[in-house]
Amino acid sequence: MLDPVELTAKLVQCPSITPEEGGALVLLQGVLEGAGFTCTRIDRGGVSNLFARWGAAGNAKVFGFNGHTDVVPLGDEGAWTKPPFGAVIEDGWMYGRGATDMKSGVAAFVAAAVDLVQTAPPEGGIIITITGDEEAEALHGTTAILDWMEQQGERMSVCLVGEPTAPEVMGEMIKIGRRGSMSAFFTARGKQGHVAYPQRSKNPVPALARLIDRLSSAELDQGTDHFDPSTLACTTFDVGNPATNVVPAEARATVNIRFNDAHTSASLTEWLEKELATLRDETGIDLTMTTRVSGESFVTPPGPLSDLIANAVEAETGLRPELSTTGGTSDARFIKDHCPVVECGLVGHRMHQVDERVRVEQIEQLKSIYSRILTDYFAD
Amino acid sequence: MLDPVELTAKLVQCPSITPEEGGALVLLQGVLEGAGFTCTRIDRGGVSNLFARWGAAGNAKVFGFNGHTDVVPLGDEGAWTKPPFGAVIEDGWMYGRGATDMKSGVAAFVAAAVDLVQTAPPEGGIIITITGDEEAEALHGTTAILDWMEQQGERMSVCLVGEPTAPEVMGEMIKIGRRGSMSAFFTARGKQGHVAYPQRSKNPVPALARLIDRLSSAELDQGTDHFDPSTLACTTFDVGNPATNVVPAEARATVNIRFNDAHTSASLTEWLEKELATLRDETGIDLTMTTRVSGESFVTPPGPLSDLIANAVEAETGLRPELSTTGGTSDARFIKDHCPVVECGLVGHRMHQVDERVRVEQIEQLKSIYSRILTDYFAD
Repeated sequence: MLDPVELTAKLVQCPSITPEEGGALVLLQGVLEGAGFTCTRIDRGGVSNLFARWGAAGNAKVFGFNGHTDVVPLGDEGAWTKPPFGAVIEDGWMYGRGATDMKSGVAAFVAAAVDLVQTAPPEGGIIITITGDEEAEALHGTTAILDWMEQQGERMSVCLVGEPTAPEVMGEMIKIGRRGSMSAFFTARGKQGHVAYPQRSKNPVPALARLIDRLSSAELDQGTDHFDPSTLACTTFDVGNPATNVVPAEARATVNIRFNDAHTSASLTEWLEKELATLRDETGIDLTMTTRVSGESFVTPPGPLSDLIANAVEAETGLRPELSTTGGTSDARFIKDHCPVVECGLVGHRMHQVDERVRVEQIEQLKSIYSRILTDYFAD
Repeated sequence: MLDPVELTAKLVQCPSITPEEGGALVLLQGVLEGAGFTCTRIDRGGVSNLFARWGAAGNAKVFGFNGHTDVVPLGDEGAWTKPPFGAVIEDGWMYGRGATDMKSGVAAFVAAAVDLVQTAPPEGGIIITITGDEEAEALHGTTAILDWMEQQGERMSVCLVGEPTAPEVMGEMIKIGRRGSMSAFFTARGKQGHVAYPQRSKNPVPALARLIDRLSSAELDQGTDHFDPSTLACTTFDVGNPATNVVPAEARATVNIRFNDAHTSASLTEWLEKELATLRDETGIDLTMTTRVSGESFVTPPGPLSDLIANAVEAETGLRPELSTTGGTSDARFIKDHCPVVECGLVGHRMHQVDERVRVEQIEQLKSIYSRILTDYFAD
């Protein structure tokens, strides 16, 4: 039996700060090949990724797990009370960067899968995809694996992403979808001049300020069946003019929108363009924008997959998990185009912060949940 | 006869980039002492200034001239087509930093004053004050001279500041007052957080943007008898947050107000504080400000002094000058507390820019205007 706690510790000891592989995928490949998985390293754009399959190719019923071994940087390294790659266990906590996000999740599903194929080989297949590029741009991570799978004809029937999903208590929440995310970068161009002669200059700042006020005050929607209301946040506004007697020529601002299924990035772009045009007419200031879309919103509506997972969570924790769509983005946004996808993991203690840590018994509990999910899935 | 063109050239050749004396005041002290002026160097706070009086102390009728010999930095030195301290004359133009702002003005009034006392000594006194700190903070320039004069009991009856005052054509404008100038520096403080969880953060940017929109849209007044409407310009707005997934904790912005005699810096500060309080109530964001007052607005209403100067300008140029209060600040804002003050000078070609230059014949014309003003003043 593969010990998920020991495997988590070994993974935490790999210094895989994104996009460094840090030995984590090599370690997992060894473990999985030892258990009979066929592994392929899919490296693209300087990023390492791992594909592993148990069972013959082309199985009709294939359960997928997805996760990542890259971790965010250490932040203020001096503020850590334990070595960030030490995997020190104290008072029931294991400390380390990636302890919750998400080396424990990866260890738990790898242990559950190895356990199953070694003790009760299922009628069907298991595919495990692990990326080294989830925390950075995610350009060459899960998408690279999915592109390769497409070429090879590899299919998952369903997929579980093992990211932390519980805000406070193990089992209280799983995620059946995510909001979309996009950023818009605005530039307002006027004409520089001396403040004493305003008629000779055109100040771009008030026009951009009005735009930001309007966008920030707009109600995008009131929420939908499975989603909270969409939100817009102005993340920066910059001019950088140190002279109090000079009207600046240019101002820039950025907004980020987290949107539900009442919108698409295209419909939001259209709305933003309309607001820009209105302000151009009002102010005579040249306002332009570019956009960057991180992902569209998506939802796997409550059904067989969420039932399967929620039942297993309830059986192991006693809690019926909420089916949520809150929080940031995850690689589920790529997988949803491939097959139904749900996220289920542990509590994210101090994710991305110093002294990131995980309750040791939660790693074991999560492994039990994943084992039950696999058993129930193939028993069906 | 002291040649004002030659004196301008000698002054331009002094590299007196503010606050460097550069030899300019030493040169003028020699010229004025040679003509019988009593000179005192009034140096304060690392800045050099010159006080010069002709005639006995305590004269009832004392005409004052004020000017500065410091100049702004060269800017893009490589873009100058002539040496910036060369005083090269070509096609009737003299080139150099300070050629118009305002070494030619200083040379013209020094030449006019020396001319008068040497050829037709007046019944009364002439006081010439020249500062080396007009272009920078002006903390230890004309104010230092006026402080010293107060202590010594030195008084001017009226004063003419020789700054350039004509936008395009010699003689078209003199200045009888100036708008006040103040800056307000705003800080908006919220609470940093992840954009995916807006309920856990408080974004200071929209509140500050709304403030800037409101202030920029406000009509301060519609102008007064001698002034254009007051204006407000947002000169910068800065957050400096590079992360599109983070709500920033703080935002800063600056506005500069050029205000007429419908306001004081105190009344404007009160207005701004009220706007801040309203927005604090609306948004729950902590908004604070500090202010810096460069000068209050002032006007020397049309009367004997402006008539004297306008008549001389008209006699020499054929143009009846407009009595204006437009443009930036000048040291007249300090002198107005001492005696009636009017500004009258030449056309400011490329002031503060590369290839600053002056028409040679305008230096001679300006000297003639100043001579006529002195003659008419003492003839009265």
